[in-house]
Amino acid sequence: MAKFMDVHSGFHGVTPEELDAAHAADLKIEGEEGVHFERAWLDPEQGKVFCLSSGPSKEAVLRIHERTGHPTTEIYELTAEV
Amino acid sequence: MAKFMDVHSGFHGVTPEELDAAHAADLKIEGEEGVHFERAWLDPEQGKVFCLSSGPSKEAVLRIHERTGHPTTEIYELTAEV
Repeated sequence: MAKFMDVHSGFHGVTPEELDAAHAADLKIEGEEGVHFERAWLDPEQGKVFCLSSGPSKEAVLRIHERTGHPTTEIYELTAEV
Repeated sequence: MAKFMDVHSGFHGVTPEELDAAHAADLKIEGEEGVHFERAWLDPEQGKVFCLSSGPSKEAVLRIHERTGHPTTEIYELTAEV
């Protein structure tokens, strides 16, 4: 199981409630890809969302985001953390 | 106290030990700016480091990174998280 950070751009003005709803939608189907979204952080001024997840592959993570309507192509595999 | 994600680019091939050392250097002086670096994640293949911190301002966070030898200008204020 690998760990990932994916980044969404252009999410200017997104509210905390919208972030919650997007995260909840991911959680609802993540199991179908063996993915788990652990955390998400929002900067609505610069329009960025960071999602920390674990799963079998980048593609699996991105497929969940795609299916829940917030696709991104920017994803990093995290091989070390402190 | 606000929360921030800062991003470092160009850190290709950085080792987990180097990430540990960089984080330890930040922790050693962070108190001088009222900052705390909570977590850091590394993708050595794409050369990215993500640092999650709390502190009084973006500038305070960036000053710590600058003084410990790994400056960046890319930082986001996180006003919501899940």
